Amino acid sequence: MKFAVVGTGVIGSGWITRMLAHGHEVIATDPSEGAYERMLKQVKQNWPYAEELGLAEGASLENLTFTPYLEEAVKEADHIQENVPEIESLKEQVLTEIDFYARPDATIGSSTSGIKPSELQRNLQHPERLVVAHPFHPVYILPLVEIVPGQLTAEATIVKAEQAYEGIGMDVLHVRHEIEGHIADRLMEALWREALHIVNDGIATTEEVDKAFTHAAGLRYAQYGPFMTFHLAGGEGGMRHMLKQFGPALKKPWTKLVAPELTKDLYEEVVNGCEASSQGQTMSELDQKRNEFLIKVKKLAEEYWPEDTPSMKKATRPSVY
Amino acid sequence: MKFAVVGTGVIGSGWITRMLAHGHEVIATDPSEGAYERMLKQVKQNWPYAEELGLAEGASLENLTFTPYLEEAVKEADHIQENVPEIESLKEQVLTEIDFYARPDATIGSSTSGIKPSELQRNLQHPERLVVAHPFHPVYILPLVEIVPGQLTAEATIVKAEQAYEGIGMDVLHVRHEIEGHIADRLMEALWREALHIVNDGIATTEEVDKAFTHAAGLRYAQYGPFMTFHLAGGEGGMRHMLKQFGPALKKPWTKLVAPELTKDLYEEVVNGCEASSQGQTMSELDQKRNEFLIKVKKLAEEYWPEDTPSMKKATRPSVY
Repeated sequence: MKFAVVGTGVIGSGWITRMLAHGHEVIATDPSEGAYERMLKQVKQNWPYAEELGLAEGASLENLTFTPYLEEAVKEADHIQENVPEIESLKEQVLTEIDFYARPDATIGSSTSGIKPSELQRNLQHPERLVVAHPFHPVYILPLVEIVPGQLTAEATIVKAEQAYEGIGMDVLHVRHEIEGHIADRLMEALWREALHIVNDGIATTEEVDKAFTHAAGLRYAQYGPFMTFHLAGGEGGMRHMLKQFGPALKKPWTKLVAPELTKDLYEEVVNGCEASSQGQTMSELDQKRNEFLIKVKKLAEEYWPEDTPSMKKATRPSVY
Repeated sequence: MKFAVVGTGVIGSGWITRMLAHGHEVIATDPSEGAYERMLKQVKQNWPYAEELGLAEGASLENLTFTPYLEEAVKEADHIQENVPEIESLKEQVLTEIDFYARPDATIGSSTSGIKPSELQRNLQHPERLVVAHPFHPVYILPLVEIVPGQLTAEATIVKAEQAYEGIGMDVLHVRHEIEGHIADRLMEALWREALHIVNDGIATTEEVDKAFTHAAGLRYAQYGPFMTFHLAGGEGGMRHMLKQFGPALKKPWTKLVAPELTKDLYEEVVNGCEASSQGQTMSELDQKRNEFLIKVKKLAEEYWPEDTPSMKKATRPSVY
């Protein structure tokens, strides 16, 4: 398959790495100054991790082309991945251009983490070929992609997009209804807001919050999500027992309800806390350690993740159609 | 050290396993019928995992004694761990009994996940010797214990409790101010409520929510908590860049604010979803797989967790004193 990648920042470079590692051709484009050099540097940095996860036959950095011209990048592509900054007007404008120059049978995935596909597709000539395809950083290691169709997305587009993403080693999660933040980011946002409140209220530092998570719940969440975690905490009765015993506690005013103001003090505390936790390591050293760890834990978790059940497989055709 | 464990359910049996595995003597007590047999069965089930993590010299199941009489269990103990059901009046009553029979220099830890220590200690004769010491399931594998002092807890108690828990291989997190749910459970609660809303609103099934977490964020959270995760997502600028770019999004009405009603429909959907995800495995088979996985991922994460920084070490004396 021939992929085009529009926007070559951290996420775009992550997609490029993953596509190349699976043996595909990629044409990348980004109009900003120095984009090519930055992208190439990132892809080269990512490559050893892709190698460690296993390259497909024919996978090579030589299958990568760069052009500053969007038209040139997208006109021959089978699938186009858009990763421009998270500003709705900018995304709409770039998607309109992609739509104009792309082959009529090409599909388009937007990496947006928050915008609904129906909003992104409403001004396109061929709105039926767009889905949101939201990945996770680092894209070349983490396998999940959330596919979210808009009101005008065609059934055939979903099928083609699913094949494209599975062809680059991803686990597709079909989101049934479009909501801001899709699914995974809503969960992370809820956690993030609560964490900010705890720091803002002086209950704990950023380091303490992180340790409270990594040394207990975080160890569990690579294997089981929030539901199965509580299912296993219910003893023989599982979730049935859990909800009977702790259901009433749902109404306790435990978690904070709205996001705290991002005051200068909170900003400083959060930034300084993270810099302290980094213990003098550069971002690139931290990235490297994270990648090493993620590859090991992903290989480990894959042996333990449950197979998709029939009910999940059935759900792969969203109910909005 | 001589430990007493009051209440021998899942958490109590977990503590017993951990204490025995570190070579200590344990006297356990629980007045309910069949408690001894259930506890013994659980501790024996847990033991192979303790062995895999490494037993201390002299560690043996033979260092375990059981008595149905609370007085007998606590009167000689150096440290007493209370794990009765999460009902405030019951906890207060049992703690009053423990306080009455224990040696004056013994320390008491309560495993409560939600109740503040100041509430638990207010009617004790020796309130200064009580802390909340909140562990995570499975206690014999997960290393974190949150130590929360109440208004009347003595500085010496915190020091002794810290030594006791470090002596059984735990990572102590001192919570500076007592709040319901301490720190880790507040984070998990925020996640849990959001997950329930997503299911309640028909956005995704429990299986899909779990997959959205485990296949992306969950893989990262065994190494880095919510703050460092975003620090690494900020590229070279780290958290400083992250907050500038995504700070405004804090106010977006993404996450749901209050817990959904636990209606019969939601109850059924959550329970049935977890049972489907179990794919015919019994709770005990799921427990076993979880334990195998946790031991591996814990060993892996330990190589990557940051050392506590000086600022965290300083924080080990809570500011309430």
